Amino acid sequence: MTAAEAVDGGRRRSGGREARRERRSGAGTAAAPAFITRQVPTYELLGEEGLALIERHAEQLLQEVGLEFRGDPEVLRLWQEAGADVRGELVRFPAGLVPAIIRRSVRPQFTQHARNPARSVEIGGRHTVFSPAYGSPFVYDRAGGRRYGTIKDFENFVKLAYASPWLHHSGGTICEPVDVPVNKRHLDMVYAHLRWSDKALMGSVTAPERAEDSIELCRVAFGRDFVEQNCVILGNINVNSPLVYDVTMTAALRTSAAANQGIVVVPFILGGAMGPVTIAGAIAQSHAEAMAGVALTQLVRPGAPVIYGSFLSSLSLRTGAPTFGMPEPVLSHLVVGQLARRLGVPLRCGGALTGSKLADAQGAQESSDALFSACLGGANFILHAAGWLEGGLVMGYEKFMLDVDHCGMLHTFLAGLPLDENGFAMEAFREVGIGKHYLGAQHTLKNYQTAFYDSALASNESYEQWAEAGSQDADTRAHARWQQVLRDYEPPPIDPGVDAALTDFIARRKAAIPDAWY
Amino acid sequence: MTAAEAVDGGRRRSGGREARRERRSGAGTAAAPAFITRQVPTYELLGEEGLALIERHAEQLLQEVGLEFRGDPEVLRLWQEAGADVRGELVRFPAGLVPAIIRRSVRPQFTQHARNPARSVEIGGRHTVFSPAYGSPFVYDRAGGRRYGTIKDFENFVKLAYASPWLHHSGGTICEPVDVPVNKRHLDMVYAHLRWSDKALMGSVTAPERAEDSIELCRVAFGRDFVEQNCVILGNINVNSPLVYDVTMTAALRTSAAANQGIVVVPFILGGAMGPVTIAGAIAQSHAEAMAGVALTQLVRPGAPVIYGSFLSSLSLRTGAPTFGMPEPVLSHLVVGQLARRLGVPLRCGGALTGSKLADAQGAQESSDALFSACLGGANFILHAAGWLEGGLVMGYEKFMLDVDHCGMLHTFLAGLPLDENGFAMEAFREVGIGKHYLGAQHTLKNYQTAFYDSALASNESYEQWAEAGSQDADTRAHARWQQVLRDYEPPPIDPGVDAALTDFIARRKAAIPDAWY
Repeated sequence: MTAAEAVDGGRRRSGGREARRERRSGAGTAAAPAFITRQVPTYELLGEEGLALIERHAEQLLQEVGLEFRGDPEVLRLWQEAGADVRGELVRFPAGLVPAIIRRSVRPQFTQHARNPARSVEIGGRHTVFSPAYGSPFVYDRAGGRRYGTIKDFENFVKLAYASPWLHHSGGTICEPVDVPVNKRHLDMVYAHLRWSDKALMGSVTAPERAEDSIELCRVAFGRDFVEQNCVILGNINVNSPLVYDVTMTAALRTSAAANQGIVVVPFILGGAMGPVTIAGAIAQSHAEAMAGVALTQLVRPGAPVIYGSFLSSLSLRTGAPTFGMPEPVLSHLVVGQLARRLGVPLRCGGALTGSKLADAQGAQESSDALFSACLGGANFILHAAGWLEGGLVMGYEKFMLDVDHCGMLHTFLAGLPLDENGFAMEAFREVGIGKHYLGAQHTLKNYQTAFYDSALASNESYEQWAEAGSQDADTRAHARWQQVLRDYEPPPIDPGVDAALTDFIARRKAAIPDAWY
Repeated sequence: MTAAEAVDGGRRRSGGREARRERRSGAGTAAAPAFITRQVPTYELLGEEGLALIERHAEQLLQEVGLEFRGDPEVLRLWQEAGADVRGELVRFPAGLVPAIIRRSVRPQFTQHARNPARSVEIGGRHTVFSPAYGSPFVYDRAGGRRYGTIKDFENFVKLAYASPWLHHSGGTICEPVDVPVNKRHLDMVYAHLRWSDKALMGSVTAPERAEDSIELCRVAFGRDFVEQNCVILGNINVNSPLVYDVTMTAALRTSAAANQGIVVVPFILGGAMGPVTIAGAIAQSHAEAMAGVALTQLVRPGAPVIYGSFLSSLSLRTGAPTFGMPEPVLSHLVVGQLARRLGVPLRCGGALTGSKLADAQGAQESSDALFSACLGGANFILHAAGWLEGGLVMGYEKFMLDVDHCGMLHTFLAGLPLDENGFAMEAFREVGIGKHYLGAQHTLKNYQTAFYDSALASNESYEQWAEAGSQDADTRAHARWQQVLRDYEPPPIDPGVDAALTDFIARRKAAIPDAWY
């Protein structure tokens, strides 16, 4: 019997109906799962033959074309030592070298510890972690319109993510706080994650000293010894596709891996721009690039926590603009998921992606296909699970709330189908009989509170009720909702000594360096 | 090598890039596929053990609880003759009887002929057919608001479906034309399908004489002998769940099956109302009900074309209202798809379902999950693929256009991933090298026009361009689009003699019966 277990994780694992009831209430984080443990199978788009063919082409790229590692002699030394063919900054890899390095020491699953131990997440295996969108310079809400993000917006999104039962992670650069100097933002961002949330977080990787600061703040919060032994922070490294890693990225990668902290390696390929316009080639390229970065973390420190990422997208044929949530990237990410599983590395995919400017039908449709397929593809760490608009240029408040609701639905989907005696309800059939309704049946009364996902935002009342309440569309309801959640927000507890040490460290670092604004 | 073939069907099968280019142009029906031939695998949610368990519970319902067939002695006679245990109107079925009847004569795939032979559809196997939404009393558009449907609206939707390259079927009661007497509507509806489209259609089943009229109109259009030998019309039969078939439905079923015309058998179960509130029980019930109806068509006429349907939904815990596009029905439909495939019967699932009043984020998100999962589940005939709003109460013009665009995307998804030499683009990697862009590469120039799905409605231009064009949301763009498509509409050719015979038949039938309005 495929009894679906509760979608519940870590220390809070608690099966059964009670957990589901609490989990589905949509209210607060009290009983929410720390992460998802998937109870449904992954969707296997390609068979063995197709996957082997892609792997062969990725190997061919590694052997024949190679990758450039620019401005980082230490990386070139590591590759040479590992047996690669290094000429200047061009590195070519003998057949099988890169996957062999990965398989030798990579961890198929690791724990990222949160400040609240009950919120620590498992990354890899059958687990899925939803994390907010990342990296937007702009924010949008219905009242305030589209504008540059500020540290206030950043804190708002940290609080909204903390308050949501359906996000397991606090994320990283949720939006760029452009009112803070560019060389000091990382301090305020990491502090906001540590102070206004207790979920796991991502640090800065835009320069090695910022990666180091991010980790140092975690050492203050978690304890130095603990951080040496455990992963408490993730850094997201974008490859300079096609086939280039520059020193900004590799230095941050080396810093994090050496410190035993997690790295997400993400080839960023818009087909036709940073890679070929045909899907198969872009996937092979992405696989080659990702494998090289993953292997590099293992050369720096065998066993360093690492996530294999992908970001493949398409172009609008009419405008040349990037498009998101389209069927070609959906296909790509499903295949990339299969490739990562064959390597035995945790997988990151993008989440609720869209090119839309608004949380309208386009925004929701593109995001839904992208997020649903990432889940079906077995993604372990889903960045951009909530808030993403306009190809990542904008973090939307309403979009965030709507996406989070979809994340909630996916908790139910990924929990699968309970096939137990209660599920089959044979006593209800005998009680109700033929042609009568089940509304008052014992079995219905026993189960109705937990039977179905309870959306916080969907309107399912009658047209008349809906019209009387103002004929609000989903975006309007989401606008009211995020404001309410912020009003209801209560910060998680923090040791005052730790808080003082964090603010003290930040003040000293800020005083030590002049402001830079670009 | 898993070379994905073109998603193309029937007489128009034409592989290769040219077909894809035309298909993706989004303009007109000229080169669109008559139906989809799926090149990706189905998603198998449950394993053998889980499926066998559901089948066992469905058998238990058939054996122990039974079904009632009300008001139709002929049906009771057929069941008795087939070996069922008939007591009054209650029918119980010995173990294995119902699936055995089905397996003996059911056709796993059949052709539904369209008036234009190039538009005939294959139903079953690896094929998927998208059909418009069905049965709404109301229509909605941004300018006209929510109102009762008229025959003018009905004709508009027939024309919009005809004009879309991504819908393969003209559908049936796209909206109720409430300005036409209830007992004569079927004549005008079937005429509209036959006259303003040349795609395959569905007839009326609300009374046996209406089913007969629908078929008779097809005999005029296709020729009497042709209709006796071939399926040219489908009828959608909803079961009176739980566990009841009434004479209105079974008489229409008998009429259609005897005439060798297609029947879609659809248990309609809102969990907690017409069936148990838990998913497994509702699926077992749906399977039992659907199998009984499918088997009945085979008792009437072995080999009669029949489709196994399902419509399982959930309830809002807060309002008691039905909900759509939620994760529980998504899970259910995936399992139902597996059960239908094991029986060897073509499968119908609902498409772009939503409880939303508008084509907003809720409408798009719920619809996307429902439609995408129906495709992944291998549905062969997807009713409600476009236009559905408000739990089926409303047919939306803008929603229709947005859904159709999603259907277009799913054509690309279901075509899978070309893993040929051009797809892997090794010459492009060698040409471009490292760290450079692919925009001007030979391979890009050769492929860019066909590389990606070209959405007719998505906005992917820059924010500035979008703002300058009026900051339109997707719903606003869809509003302009359906009006434009209707302005550009040109009817398909029809033999004037056939047209005259159709209108003559309709005039005579209308004159022979007094108007009824309810």
